[in-house]
Parts: sequence; structure tokens; C-alpha cells
Amino acid sequence: MAKLLALSLSLCFLLFGGCFAFREQPQQNECQLEHLNALEPDNRIESEGGLIETWNPNNRQFRCAGVALSRATLQRNALRRPFYTNAPQEIFIQQGNGYFGMVFPGCPETFMEPRESEQREGRRFRDSHQKVNRFREGDIIAVPTGVVFWMYNDQDTPVIAVSLIDTSSFQNQLDQMPRRFYLAGNQEQEFLQYQQQEGRKEEQENEGNNIFSGFRRDFLEDALNVNRHIVDKLQGRDEDEEKGAIVKVKGGLSFISPSEKQPRHQRGSRQEEDEDEDEDEKRQPHRHSRQDEDEDEKRRPRRHSRQDEDEDEEEKRQPRRHSRGGSRSQRDNGFEETICTARLHQNIDSSSSPDIYIPQAGRIKTVTSFDLPALRWLKLSAEHGSLHKNAMFVPHYNLNANSILYALKGRARLQVVNCNGNNVFDGELEAGRALIVPQNFAVAAKSMSDRFSYVAFKTNDRAAIGKLVGATSSLSSIPEDVIAATFNMERNEARKLKSSNPFTFLVPPRESENKAAA
Amino acid sequence: MAKLLALSLSLCFLLFGGCFAFREQPQQNECQLEHLNALEPDNRIESEGGLIETWNPNNRQFRCAGVALSRATLQRNALRRPFYTNAPQEIFIQQGNGYFGMVFPGCPETFMEPRESEQREGRRFRDSHQKVNRFREGDIIAVPTGVVFWMYNDQDTPVIAVSLIDTSSFQNQLDQMPRRFYLAGNQEQEFLQYQQQEGRKEEQENEGNNIFSGFRRDFLEDALNVNRHIVDKLQGRDEDEEKGAIVKVKGGLSFISPSEKQPRHQRGSRQEEDEDEDEDEKRQPHRHSRQDEDEDEKRRPRRHSRQDEDEDEEEKRQPRRHSRGGSRSQRDNGFEETICTARLHQNIDSSSSPDIYIPQAGRIKTVTSFDLPALRWLKLSAEHGSLHKNAMFVPHYNLNANSILYALKGRARLQVVNCNGNNVFDGELEAGRALIVPQNFAVAAKSMSDRFSYVAFKTNDRAAIGKLVGATSSLSSIPEDVIAATFNMERNEARKLKSSNPFTFLVPPRESENKAAA
Amino acid sequence: MAKLLALSLSLCFLLFGGCFAFREQPQQNECQLEHLNALEPDNRIESEGGLIETWNPNNRQFRCAGVALSRATLQRNALRRPFYTNAPQEIFIQQGNGYFGMVFPGCPETFMEPRESEQREGRRFRDSHQKVNRFREGDIIAVPTGVVFWMYNDQDTPVIAVSLIDTSSFQNQLDQMPRRFYLAGNQEQEFLQYQQQEGRKEEQENEGNNIFSGFRRDFLEDALNVNRHIVDKLQGRDEDEEKGAIVKVKGGLSFISPSEKQPRHQRGSRQEEDEDEDEDEKRQPHRHSRQDEDEDEKRRPRRHSRQDEDEDEEEKRQPRRHSRGGSRSQRDNGFEETICTARLHQNIDSSSSPDIYIPQAGRIKTVTSFDLPALRWLKLSAEHGSLHKNAMFVPHYNLNANSILYALKGRARLQVVNCNGNNVFDGELEAGRALIVPQNFAVAAKSMSDRFSYVAFKTNDRAAIGKLVGATSSLSSIPEDVIAATFNMERNEARKLKSSNPFTFLVPPRESENKAAA
Repeated sequence: MAKLLALSLSLCFLLFGGCFAFREQPQQNECQLEHLNALEPDNRIESEGGLIETWNPNNRQFRCAGVALSRATLQRNALRRPFYTNAPQEIFIQQGNGYFGMVFPGCPETFMEPRESEQREGRRFRDSHQKVNRFREGDIIAVPTGVVFWMYNDQDTPVIAVSLIDTSSFQNQLDQMPRRFYLAGNQEQEFLQYQQQEGRKEEQENEGNNIFSGFRRDFLEDALNVNRHIVDKLQGRDEDEEKGAIVKVKGGLSFISPSEKQPRHQRGSRQEEDEDEDEDEKRQPHRHSRQDEDEDEKRRPRRHSRQDEDEDEEEKRQPRRHSRGGSRSQRDNGFEETICTARLHQNIDSSSSPDIYIPQAGRIKTVTSFDLPALRWLKLSAEHGSLHKNAMFVPHYNLNANSILYALKGRARLQVVNCNGNNVFDGELEAGRALIVPQNFAVAAKSMSDRFSYVAFKTNDRAAIGKLVGATSSLSSIPEDVIAATFNMERNEARKLKSSNPFTFLVPPRESENKAAA
Repeated sequence: MAKLLALSLSLCFLLFGGCFAFREQPQQNECQLEHLNALEPDNRIESEGGLIETWNPNNRQFRCAGVALSRATLQRNALRRPFYTNAPQEIFIQQGNGYFGMVFPGCPETFMEPRESEQREGRRFRDSHQKVNRFREGDIIAVPTGVVFWMYNDQDTPVIAVSLIDTSSFQNQLDQMPRRFYLAGNQEQEFLQYQQQEGRKEEQENEGNNIFSGFRRDFLEDALNVNRHIVDKLQGRDEDEEKGAIVKVKGGLSFISPSEKQPRHQRGSRQEEDEDEDEDEKRQPHRHSRQDEDEDEKRRPRRHSRQDEDEDEEEKRQPRRHSRGGSRSQRDNGFEETICTARLHQNIDSSSSPDIYIPQAGRIKTVTSFDLPALRWLKLSAEHGSLHKNAMFVPHYNLNANSILYALKGRARLQVVNCNGNNVFDGELEAGRALIVPQNFAVAAKSMSDRFSYVAFKTNDRAAIGKLVGATSSLSSIPEDVIAATFNMERNEARKLKSSNPFTFLVPPRESENKAAA
Repeated sequence: MAKLLALSLSLCFLLFGGCFAFREQPQQNECQLEHLNALEPDNRIESEGGLIETWNPNNRQFRCAGVALSRATLQRNALRRPFYTNAPQEIFIQQGNGYFGMVFPGCPETFMEPRESEQREGRRFRDSHQKVNRFREGDIIAVPTGVVFWMYNDQDTPVIAVSLIDTSSFQNQLDQMPRRFYLAGNQEQEFLQYQQQEGRKEEQENEGNNIFSGFRRDFLEDALNVNRHIVDKLQGRDEDEEKGAIVKVKGGLSFISPSEKQPRHQRGSRQEEDEDEDEDEKRQPHRHSRQDEDEDEKRRPRRHSRQDEDEDEEEKRQPRRHSRGGSRSQRDNGFEETICTARLHQNIDSSSSPDIYIPQAGRIKTVTSFDLPALRWLKLSAEHGSLHKNAMFVPHYNLNANSILYALKGRARLQVVNCNGNNVFDGELEAGRALIVPQNFAVAAKSMSDRFSYVAFKTNDRAAIGKLVGATSSLSSIPEDVIAATFNMERNEARKLKSSNPFTFLVPPRESENKAAA
């Protein structure tokens, strides 16, 4: 496993500067933190179909880390209305399953729904749009700066999505305030409340708060070639502000998605199917029911369904295949392939194929830009961990990133130490709370629950850690004699210190604790 | 055309992070702008041969965008004296034609003028210097950080050059104040007036204000091995401050430039020749009279005239060819080729080969680092647009850049909307004024003149836009059902909304307006 | 030699953006400096084995440059205890020889010491650790952000190491305060004193000030699986604060290092051997006594000794070779090779193979990322210069970097000029003092000693300079007529000015001065 970390770090240096995060530094003294806190969201905005909670980005810990955190809950049949953000965003699906879409400017609309009358009328489509993706619990979703994003819950289980915005990223050329640009609705964007008074003093008449609201009606009528009635809907005029950013879809949403038996997805009926989709896929590789799964991609060199103007005769004769991700001619220009067909999510749940696995202690899995190349655009990565009771992760530090720890289940005792050797946090982190561990600060944890699990957002797409103790740690990599002189020890003590903990990163509970826990 | 934008964006992502702009973020709250203004220059410095106007870089809009803007006017035979700047610079030639030169440290002096007595004396030259380039109206010139730049107007038409300095660029390691370092003269650099009092309090005795002025005379005498008289000239001692940064050249300038009939360019007699130079070149491809033109480069794989110490015998026998960009041996080391021979300007005038062209509406052309690779050093690009009366560009936003709109001709009504749905600008932009549209803010315009044209400087060498409406826009890329639920519409309304505007980016005037305008 | 600079610059542009330094800009007005000072360290912390001196990083010049400077002196047998820093670091060895080590997380422990009983017991080792390097006077050592570093003086001559921390680097995601994270000891980290009061108010009980001190004892006992006695030593409990960051090693350190005659290095007995090691090596190439030397690397394509778990049978039979950097199988994965075996230091002393050498004037040598690729991670480079009495370096400016000049021997008169033509420094720089020359400011110097030598740290791994006068300077690269018009001269004066100084960068003393000096 140290292999994996070594690999990450080596490649990062191999690419010379590929491990830079290109972020704005916090202002003077912003990181001279003497006390960290495990924080809950401090604001909550209810809307028709769910709930958005936010952490105050002006909190000093968040200012030091240069990020903003929020959490959205979507009830069944709820749609998070499309928006874009002024900074890259990493979303972790804490719970639930559903669909999401992004709009990449300039990419073709590759999901094309044939009319019923298709055969006679030739190539006319009822609707066409860019790719729609299915997400599931444990997914990391990468949303680039300025890209329109929406998501939808088609299941009974509420979807809980935790979202990190890296406002210090240089893709954000504005100031560090997180900004949501909603395409619809009359609700305030969720971070507006944290802006300085100045930015808010000018309240406009009830004309909506979305990106269309600020244009004059006649402008939109001319630009869209639609009537006033539709413009009013675009602008969110007279819409109830309570409706909010997450709306309830009566009867559920219906759009094309690559499932053969159900050419048009219908509300909430796929739950069981989801659970055995992997086996399904293996048995019917021709179906391509999940274009974005790893297995699929390994088999085919990134050939996704796209249909552009100059498709050839053979393709025209078999139009159905294309709405499902079928074969692909070799005449692609090579450019659209990249972003327009990029994989945008990756499951990080540590239960399958962890990076570190010590049965008595727990498991860790990371998703970096090696796993999910889209993270290179974001310069973010993530780590998911799960610890048994009294198991620890050893004192270590983040070499090239800040880490935003968010507890998913159970609770753990964490300790964080700054450069002056001061303990800046010694407390519990329980499910639903977030703790920021600034770059280079040392941190260790011990699980207090049967299963403590967390996700850590990291502000570097190839985040690396330095372990202070254990196998392949700083202590084990320094010569024995240097250790002895450094710590004022006898040589045999130094030898013992270097070899006492044979584990990497995770440490099982000591015998005594095991018994106590049993 | 959407193809082009798609291409830009895709490649930007293809190169993973190639679309970063690497700029300093504005300080906290700097972009919480509730009112934008279309600004004129607020200061004007006359000099012997012309005029420099500046916009106040401390204006909040400019601080948010992290740029500085200025405009220079050069009368006939006027020389803008050499200077360098602490940040990358993109210059747009609004009017006129002339010559410019840059000094790339370490590059060879490739323009070598043979003496009259050359044949007898062998290889001795009257003068040698680095490449001199010809510019014309509509050119974008890329000036890297710290590179000495000068320009000269040899025509009757005054040259008007609008210059954007990206002070937030990370190539500028100083603070964000724009700084001109003049190599000559006694004038204040044009942005000094905007520095804080502290920076100005110390006025020195009348010793000039250029980069040589601050050295002691004896230092310069020793370093240059020249007498005091020449040092005084270098330091601008006793020069009239009114002379300024743009000086008048009596009798015009004369230097080698690659024109066969006029081995030494003489003042102001080439105007007609300029206008048919392209045909000229096609007829006489061996002449290479304009090394920097596109056609030329496509034909030859970047082989420019350079003459270094180790040239071979064959070359020695034909020295005249080399001062005009002739054949080139294959022994080049490959390094000097790159910067020393890089193309540094590109015409953006939309009349020829636009990227978007809708005859009833207008045309748009962009110059990015794909067109002009030197822009990769600058991390800047530009867009030139021209709109017929009542034609619009649709609501859209800059995905990854700030946009500095500068109106060239006519006037248009513009509207800009921020993340809170507030209208932060609704007014006219007329020729000569600039409006800053921050990243992600939505903007739309309608031309109020028969021909409204503008140039937009963008703070990213691969700036991309996201259209909110029309073909290949956010609306058209989202599934119909999602649109319907998002905007609280019936499905048939959503279908209408998605398809109502079939145009990309530019929209012709509506029928009624066409008649009214006629 | 201009070749070299040309090369640097060209390649920098060739790699398009490779010459960016990716640094945080100083805050508004921070670089509007009207007076620079040649500064001495303003604080001094004695410790058992030496001394650490620091320059105040809050000094405005340092804030403008975004760097911190310190100087460590190690007496014989002194060990600088391991620490890591929140920013990249360039260390110049002003005096002395010794050993240093770094810990790259995830890299294997490649120095393995066999037990005496090795032959019988097979592969068991007394100690193993990561590579240990030997440094000597004139070396530049590259220490990446967050990487643990230690150094040791095994000689009689005190080691003096000057260290530049680039706190503005984007590898530092914290604020700009330099931070040392010590792995051991009870001393304050040397930059703590400059932090704001707020950061210091909380003094903890006497529990040590290192990165282990802030953890609770039980945490460390569990994580390390050691007893309380060892934990106390780790935490620096009850250690005398005076002991400090540099400790004295009684009897000297002993660790494996690649010297055949002395398989275990013994205290201070290698001095003579060091001096002829190069010849030594040539005669006995099989010894590989200095894996990190240039000659060695050129011969072998970076094959260093590393031993990982899956080594093959043949290797097992010859275990001794591996602890000395012998042959290497071809099954390497190619990743570990890069960082784990990267060269981390390079001698810059100008006496051998200078880049500029003018016997009457002096010599200059630069170390950039072309010479020492590890500098690409740091985005730093360095220049070493040596001037004879009354020789000058000509007025020039740093194109893309700040320069931190540190005088090593003798003294010189320096002049620095800002963009307003004001002299911001005109004084002496003497041995042991530092002067900051901000990007683009013009600077010139004249030696006042028989030998003035300096090292300049530059905040760009491919720093380039623009010479204002002399061969291949701005003046020589601009056409004669432009020079004449620019400086208001006759053409023959311009010709004289362009050709008067035939030297590049360094200028010998004038005849008169030569005699006066003689």
C-alpha cells in the first residue's frame, strides 16, 4: 500500500509541478490557528423538495483552508435545479442514488431520443441533451468551475450530498466568496447570506434571484424568441421564494437514460435493479447500461455514444445503438472525446478494493487524479476511511494539501498539532461534523465507535501524506543513529522505536482494548 | 462554430489544467459589485509625438478583474520609446499601421544590415538588431512580462493602441500596481500617479525618470565605457519632461525591414503597398517580405531568418538572403527557434475568416493560444465582435476568465447580471469606453448602431463561454423534462424553449425591428 | 555564455508557462519600496551544537519578495534535528562539509546495513533508512515542501548553511508565515517569534515544542506501541530548552554511507579523502562511493541502489552490492526512480565550470532546473558570482524573478533603481548581509574587494535576466535609428553606444582603475 502512496508522490514529482495545487494563499495570520473546532452546518434553507445546509465560509478555519462546505438533502423525486459555481467542486454522495447532469459548453448533445414515428420520419428526435449520469452512495462527483450541474433523486431513500467548493482555486478569478449562479427560481443562493452587508444592501423588487432575473424582459424575449409568459417563468417572477433550489417533481422525472428495458426512465422503480447492475453488466456486455463504470471503460478505449452531424451511412441505419453508447467510428477528431466524454464520478466507498486494508483495524481508499482524471481540472482529491473500535490512524500530516475531514458514521477522538508543538484540537468528531486539518499540521485519531467512517476532501489532486510513525514513516526512514541523537536515546531504544509499529497508517487496537471492546 | 468553442474548451481540458490562468485572486469582497460602469480613461498625458490615456487601476472594477488598461495615440513618425512592464500585456491596434520591436534577452540579433562595402570587407555590418515586425489595424500584439517593447508609426493615420496589462498574472511577482520601466526620457511612467502617496513622496532632483536615471554617472560610464555626454542622454538629464514617452522623429525612422524594393524603409511611403501585400507575397513566394504572416508560416515550418556565429560557407556566400528570412540550415539547436522566432501578433479583425458569422446579425472572431501560441506565455486571449443594428449576442457568461469589453465603433445596450440575480449594469457602451464583465457574470447586448464593434480582452489564453440560451446552450443541453421541472413549465413549453432560438451566440433582429431599422 | 541565458529563456518559453513561478503576489503597495537596506540577521538562537540566525520575514523587503531567510551554523559533530517546512527551501552551503538526509514519504529505505551474522541469517539488517547524501561547500540543496530534512557536520570546520524559504510558493497553502515543524526537541521553532501575538499567547506547560509534543501520551503509546519512557523522549518532555534545534553528538554519528573502506562512517576522518574523491571515483568506477555526483550519473542512466520486497534470486545472492548502489535489474516500475532517486544538490561554486568567465573581471555560475531538475519542484534557482576589484556587473534586471543577494566574501557597491527611475539603494553590500532586488528593478554592482563573491537566490526555477547594456543587451538589440531617436542622439553616437561595451554581463575594471588597484 505504501506503494500506492509512493506512486502518487513520485508521479506528482515526475510530472514536475503536477502536484501544485495552484491556490490562493490565505491572508496574513489566517492560519495561525490555536483552536480548531468540529463544526456543524450553521445555516439551513428548506425548500420544496429538500434542504440545503451550509457552513459559514467566513469561519477562520474555512478561510485558512480556502474552501466552502455545504450539504444538500433531496427527498424522493426532488430535483436540484441547474446552477454553476465560481470554483471547482467535489461532491460526495453520503447517502442515496440518483441522476446528475452537467453542461459542458460546446459539447454535442449525445443523448437523442427517437420519436415513436422515427422509422418513417428518419432522423428527428423528441429530445436531445448532453449525457446523464447515474450516481450511487459513496460516489465522488467532480464538477468543474462554471459548468452547469443538476441532480435528481429517483429513489425512496433521501439523497445526502456533501459538497466542497475550492474557492481559493485559481479557476476562480473572483474573490473567495462562494457563488452559486442558479438558472431558475426565486430563492437566494445559499452563500449570499455570508456576503458583506455591502453586497446585499440593494434588494430588488420581487423579480426572482436567478441568472435570468436580472435581464430586462424585452432582452430575453428577443434573445430567445419566446413570449412573455415563458420569460416570466425563466425569470422566476412571482414564484414563491419558499419553493427554493430543490423542487419536487410531481410524477417524477422522465428522460432518456441507457437502460434497455426502460427506454424512458420512470419514477423510482429501479432500486432493486441498481443493486445487481454490476453482475448484470458482466452478463450482457453488449448493453452498455452504465457507460461510466470502470469495467466498461477498461474493455473499450473510451468509446461513448455521441452522434454528430457527419455520421456515416452505417450509423444512420442503426440509430438506436447510439442512444445507448454503442460502437463508434474511428473518424473522431480526438478533442471532443476528452472532456465531452470524460468520466465525472468515481466510487470511493472503502468496502470495495481499498488502498489500505488491515482487517483488525480498518480500511482506507483514496480517489486522486490517477483514479479519476477529471480531478486534474479541479485540483482536488478525496480519501475515505473506516476504522474499527479503538483502531487508530497514526500521527501523520498532509504534505501538499489541506484536509477537510467530514465524519460519516460513528465518532472518533482526534488530535491535531501545529508547528509550535501545540495541541490545537483534542476532541471528538461525530457523524455530520467537519474538521479542517491545515497543511502540514499533524493529526491522529482513534475510533470510539464500532465503525467510524469519514471522507476527507483534499485541496490537491495528488494529495500525499507523511506518516510520522510506523512502517515507511519518517521515523523508519531516518538512520538509527540519527534517531538516537535526535531524541536523546540509546541506540537500542532508537532501534525499538523504529521497529515497534509494523503497521502502515492504520493501527489495530492493543490487545487489552480488544478484550475490553469485546 | 460551436465546434470552435468546443474545441477550445476540450483541448483546454485535454491538457489538464492548461486552461488555468494562474492569476492572483482579488482581495476579499472586491468582486461583490452591485454597479458596474462603462468607463472612459480618466487621465491623459500629452507628449511630443502623441498621447497616453489611462484608466484608474484602483477603480474597483479593475481591482476585481486584476488588470490595467491604457490607450496610446501615435502621430505620424512618432516613436513610443522602449519600455518593459511588470506583467504580461495584450495590445490591440484600434487604428493605423506601423512597426514594433521587442527585445528577448539572449536571442540573437538576426536583422543584419550589410555595409555598402560588404563585398570587399566580408562579414561586417552597419547595424544589427533583433527582429522588427509590421503591425496593422486589428492586430493583437502579445508582449511578455519584462520584455522591452517599442513601436513606431510610419503612416499618416494616427496609430491608436489599446493595451491591457494583466497585473494579477503570476508572472508579476510584485504587487498589483502596473509598472512601466522606461529605458529613456524624463517623463513619469503613466501609472505612477495612481500609486499611494508613500510611493511618490520622494521626488528626486531633475535627473530623469527612466531606468538609467537612478544610477550614478560614474557607474554608467564604467559599465558602458562611454563618456559623460552620452550618459547624460541615457539618463534623460535636462530633457524636457514634456517630450514624454512618445517622441517625434524628425525625418522619420530608418531601419532594416524585409522589403526588397526598399532595403531601408523610408518614412511613410508604403501605405499603398501594404494594402496589396498579400497578393504580392503570393506572386513572389521567394521574397518572404512578411515573415510573420499566416500564409507564410503554413507553407514553411517556422524557418525564419537568423544568423548566428556558426553559419556555414554556403550561407556566407549569400549573406543578403539572411536579412530577409531565406532558407535555413538544419543545424539549429531547436531552442532558439522557439521564442526568438515566435510570432507575436495576429489579426483579429472579424472581417476576414470570422469564427461565428450570421450575415443578418454579425460576426465574432477570437484569438486564443491556439491561434497565437505566444498567448500561452501571457495567459490572455481576445475576442472581436461586430453586430448589426438590433442584433444581439445572447445571455452568456465567461466560464474561466474575466472579460474587459472595449467598444470600437457605434454603441450597444448591455446588461450584466451577478450571482444574486441582480442587474449590475443596464446601459450603453459607446466607442472608446470599457466595461468589465467579471467571470461567471451573465451578459447580453443589443447593437444600437448600424455597426457596433468591440474587442474583449480575456484573462485566460483559452477563454471559454457558456451560452445560456440558443443552440448548444445550457438550455438546449438539459433534458426537456428537467427544463420543465426547473422552470415550472409544461413539457411542450420546455420543448418550445429549447428550440425557439436556432442561432448560436448571435441573434439577428426580429422582423419588426428589421423593418423599423429599414 | 549569452547562449546559456538564451537557452534558459527559450526553453522556458518553449515549455509554455514552464517559466511561471506560481507564487502568491505581495499585498497592495508592498513593493512600492523607496529604500532598500542591506540587512543582517536580526535574531540569534544558540543551541547545544550551533546557532540559528534569522532575518525578520515581516520586514517589508522580505514581504515584497515573499521569502524568509535564515542561517544555521553547525559545530563539529553537530546534528540539525529533523524538521519539515511549509514551503520549498533552497539551502546554500557557505562553508564546510557534511551529510544530509531527507524523507520522501512512500520511498523505500534503500540504505540497508547487513548484520555481522548476515551470511547465516539471510536477509536481516541492523538498520535501513532512506538515502544519505554528502554535501560540500558551495552546494545548493533543494528541500521540497513538507519533506523531513536533517543535516550533520562530521568535520572540524563549522558548517554554515544559508536557507531561503519561499513562503509565497503555492506549495504553501497556509499563510505566508514560515513554519518549521520539528520532529524533536523542546525549542521554539525559529520563526515563531515573528508571528502575531495572537498566535503565541497560549503557552503550554513544559511539554516540548515539537510535532509529537501536542499529542496525548496514550495516543502515542498506542500508535507506536512503545512505553511511556520512549514517548517522553519523543515529546521532548523535561528536555532543556537550551539544547535547541542543533544538538551535539557525543562521539559523532555513525550510519551507513557508500564508502568501501569505511563501511560505517566514523567521526571526522574523511576530510582528505573528500578532496580527491573525484579522481578516486574515476579510477574505481565500481565503487560508486558518491552516487550523487554528476560524473556518476552521466555514466549510468540513474540506477541507484534500491531494494524492495520483490527482488529476485540473483539479487539475493549478492546482497552487499545493493547497499552501495550497484547494478539494478530492469524491472523497475519507473515511478519510484524519479523522486526517490532524484539528485537533490548541485555545486554552484563558480570556480569550476562557470557560465560566464572573463578573467579580468570574474565569473558567474547559475543553477537552474536544467542543471538540477529537483528545482522544478521548488520553482527556485540560484546564481553564484565572483568579481575582481573594480570589476562590475552591468545594469540589468531580473525578468521573471525576485533576487535575494547574499554576500559571501568581500564587499561591493550596489545600486538599485525602481520603475520611477528612483535610486532605491546606493550602498555597500558586505559579507554576511542580504539585499533584496525585486523583479524588474534595475541593479548594478562594482566590487570593492579583491574578490567579492555572492550567491543570489531567485524565485523562479528558470530565472532570466535582461541586460540593459553591453553585448546582447537591450541597447544592442534595438535598431540604431531607434536608439538615436529614443535617446535624442546623433546616429554615430547611437552606433558608439551600441558597440562601446563588448562584454557580456561582467565588465573588467577600466585601465586607470587597474593601475590604481595594482
